[in-house]
Amino acid sequence: MPAEFSLGELAVRFGLTLRGEPGLKVWNVATLSHAQAGGLSFLANSRYRRQLQSTRATAVLVSAEDEPHCPAAALIHPNPYLVYARIAALLHPEAHPAPGVHPSAVVGNKAHIAPSASIGPLAVVEDDAQIGERVSIGPGCIVQHGARIGADSVLVARVNLYPGVTLGERCILHAGAVVGADGFGFAPNAGSWVKVPQVGSVRIGDDVEIGANTTIDRGAIDDTVVESGVKLDNQIQVGHNVVIGAHTAIAACTGISGSTVIGQRCMIGGMVGFAGHLTIADDVVVTGCSLVSASIKKPGSYSSGMPTVETRLWRRMVAHLRRLDG
Amino acid sequence: MPAEFSLGELAVRFGLTLRGEPGLKVWNVATLSHAQAGGLSFLANSRYRRQLQSTRATAVLVSAEDEPHCPAAALIHPNPYLVYARIAALLHPEAHPAPGVHPSAVVGNKAHIAPSASIGPLAVVEDDAQIGERVSIGPGCIVQHGARIGADSVLVARVNLYPGVTLGERCILHAGAVVGADGFGFAPNAGSWVKVPQVGSVRIGDDVEIGANTTIDRGAIDDTVVESGVKLDNQIQVGHNVVIGAHTAIAACTGISGSTVIGQRCMIGGMVGFAGHLTIADDVVVTGCSLVSASIKKPGSYSSGMPTVETRLWRRMVAHLRRLDG
Amino acid sequence: MPAEFSLGELAVRFGLTLRGEPGLKVWNVATLSHAQAGGLSFLANSRYRRQLQSTRATAVLVSAEDEPHCPAAALIHPNPYLVYARIAALLHPEAHPAPGVHPSAVVGNKAHIAPSASIGPLAVVEDDAQIGERVSIGPGCIVQHGARIGADSVLVARVNLYPGVTLGERCILHAGAVVGADGFGFAPNAGSWVKVPQVGSVRIGDDVEIGANTTIDRGAIDDTVVESGVKLDNQIQVGHNVVIGAHTAIAACTGISGSTVIGQRCMIGGMVGFAGHLTIADDVVVTGCSLVSASIKKPGSYSSGMPTVETRLWRRMVAHLRRLDG
Repeated sequence: MPAEFSLGELAVRFGLTLRGEPGLKVWNVATLSHAQAGGLSFLANSRYRRQLQSTRATAVLVSAEDEPHCPAAALIHPNPYLVYARIAALLHPEAHPAPGVHPSAVVGNKAHIAPSASIGPLAVVEDDAQIGERVSIGPGCIVQHGARIGADSVLVARVNLYPGVTLGERCILHAGAVVGADGFGFAPNAGSWVKVPQVGSVRIGDDVEIGANTTIDRGAIDDTVVESGVKLDNQIQVGHNVVIGAHTAIAACTGISGSTVIGQRCMIGGMVGFAGHLTIADDVVVTGCSLVSASIKKPGSYSSGMPTVETRLWRRMVAHLRRLDG
Repeated sequence: MPAEFSLGELAVRFGLTLRGEPGLKVWNVATLSHAQAGGLSFLANSRYRRQLQSTRATAVLVSAEDEPHCPAAALIHPNPYLVYARIAALLHPEAHPAPGVHPSAVVGNKAHIAPSASIGPLAVVEDDAQIGERVSIGPGCIVQHGARIGADSVLVARVNLYPGVTLGERCILHAGAVVGADGFGFAPNAGSWVKVPQVGSVRIGDDVEIGANTTIDRGAIDDTVVESGVKLDNQIQVGHNVVIGAHTAIAACTGISGSTVIGQRCMIGGMVGFAGHLTIADDVVVTGCSLVSASIKKPGSYSSGMPTVETRLWRRMVAHLRRLDG
Repeated sequence: MPAEFSLGELAVRFGLTLRGEPGLKVWNVATLSHAQAGGLSFLANSRYRRQLQSTRATAVLVSAEDEPHCPAAALIHPNPYLVYARIAALLHPEAHPAPGVHPSAVVGNKAHIAPSASIGPLAVVEDDAQIGERVSIGPGCIVQHGARIGADSVLVARVNLYPGVTLGERCILHAGAVVGADGFGFAPNAGSWVKVPQVGSVRIGDDVEIGANTTIDRGAIDDTVVESGVKLDNQIQVGHNVVIGAHTAIAACTGISGSTVIGQRCMIGGMVGFAGHLTIADDVVVTGCSLVSASIKKPGSYSSGMPTVETRLWRRMVAHLRRLDG
């Protein structure tokens, strides 16, 4: 049974201006084109304004500028997308698992588990791990000895925390994420490699989200650090001793080599490669498929992703580029 | 005990012309260079014709053009590789696990599991999940509540299906694949991020193969869609609300940003990056390591992967390119 | 309780020249800048020599050239980083789990497990698997039928070995690694794809390390091969029938397409893409984010990663490059 809210209630709760009938009710979120009765939609970008025309949504979150174009009831706010995010959470609340340890989970005698935490089926929590209040450890997760998880964090399923890593509050880790595996450190020795023990750990702040199959290596000596509010998409690789500044967001498939320090509030596109030992300023944007091979000292937008053209033309462009060196 | 077939039997069953002794038997497949007695090999490309000379294979699948060069018994067909695929499946049949639920699996009381399905050791199937006839859920897989799996599909091992995702018939999902994790959606709010609930799901058609550690995110509002016959290699990332058209094949490590729509029968190379909100026509080829940053409206082959040269030369090429802007 | 060693003892054991008090003791490793009493640090590169000045380390591993600049006790060796690696292993020894099978593990009746091996909680070891002496199979690992693991190897947690793959001695596999999933092989058939059974296996030598969420596909017919001493970082994709020569090291997120053969002692950067069916010589270096689309016959360093510039400038560079073709 979904939650159901009247437009009047939403307007009051979220500080919105309502143009329409306060008693109208909505019970799900929907795109403008697929909404039906009971649907709440939003328009975040005036460029898509004409999608308003044909919508069947019961109500639409819009800016004051777009409101006159809205045929349905309008909930008006300067940042419709932000309000949408909050109302969507209200209409589609996350299921919270019941507290307690599932009988199939394997929990060490010396693990510390808050009474309100939930440990799912076939999860492993080793000795000296600390699981905070209302934490949810989903099925198949493995929390190794001494790892610590702050209150209200969620490990969705099949997440690995290696020994000793620490996680703040309200974090969300998706399936297959691995935090604390050994960094890639080997000393050359006469044509072969000697493993350098990775004795640092990983420290993750509050409100961090980590996508599916993302990997964050433990530090070689000092710790790898992910500050509060960082959002990491899927399949990102974070090397040992990397530091990611607060509120930086990184899109999928990006890789960050060891000891690179990324500033706060950066926005990094997908499939970007960072060389090691760099320093990236705060408020830097890097567009997708770029290679960052030197430090970036000033805020701004940086790129090196080469856009596709027809293969035949591309081959000629590469040939011309080579000839430049003639 | 491997299956054993006479060449005569294979010729009849697969519509092949046989040049050689129908009573000869084969019991495994092999490359031309490593084949031994009992081995069946194939030549798919006339360029490698000279590999025929020294083969010890008992029989070789060849085209009519290559047949005169074949010293062994020849099974002749216009598409030797296709016939090879089918005979290999005959000679090396997949083991089908016995139906039933392994005692170590954790299955919700309200899960619907077909009697002919197999649930492996330490798998989790939550309430309201639907598991079709002859489905095989391998060890360590996690099928969350409300997920549905069509008949004859195989989750090899340690696969995650998030709540509510649907999978068609005859799909194969390899280890570490994650279907239905949250898409990467956050609304900016005064220097930090507010999570946008991802309330869509993932719908996957029939005959889809998904490689190891590939991730397919659930939709933000509407669903992410992978149509029938799509083949995805390992470590591919599919963002929220992406649509991949029927029979498209995508090589490893490629990433597709949110809301991009890829047509049918496309062939996408490895490590290709797609920006978001693009439309890619049917029958498009993109070569490896390209960045697709704009929609592609016409079938054809597209590229932007820059081939390696000696590092010293490469540095000069980059310097020249920068100077072009002088 | 950490191990504690006197400088005299370390000098004798590792063949170091000691300048300082032999009775001084160290009990952990530390960076020059964060070391405290009891800390052993190292200086591997004279460029960072000035970091010596302010260190509080009890002792520092240095070369003879850097020794005069070291304010603390000095342990002198031509290769300080190599010696550091060995002393770090001494000071921070790995915990070895107790031999035996955890009661929650699921082990086939016909599995062969050495008495000194350890099988962790919720691991699966299927029939005909062979687990060597002192092997450690961590929590949640899945070793499928017929897979073989040599003595002293470690599967940290949640590692998958598919049926029949073989692993040498002293290997380390990190969480989420998948060895032996099907290669990406499909025969085109009138607009759709027919799966080509992948009947080869994977053979991995001794002293191989495999990073988190790295995937190594089984061969189509012959085997995929990773030779001894190879080091693979996280999220690497190794296609079917690839051969990686001994002591080659590969950084994270690199992908190697099917049937490519990489030589010995190569050093491959992160996010490099290799096309299929190539041959790469021994002692080749490829820098990060390069595309290797042709065979490399001579040792040396190769590149094609384009470094970022400001986005505005980058757009002009791309436009100029296109215009070259005019």
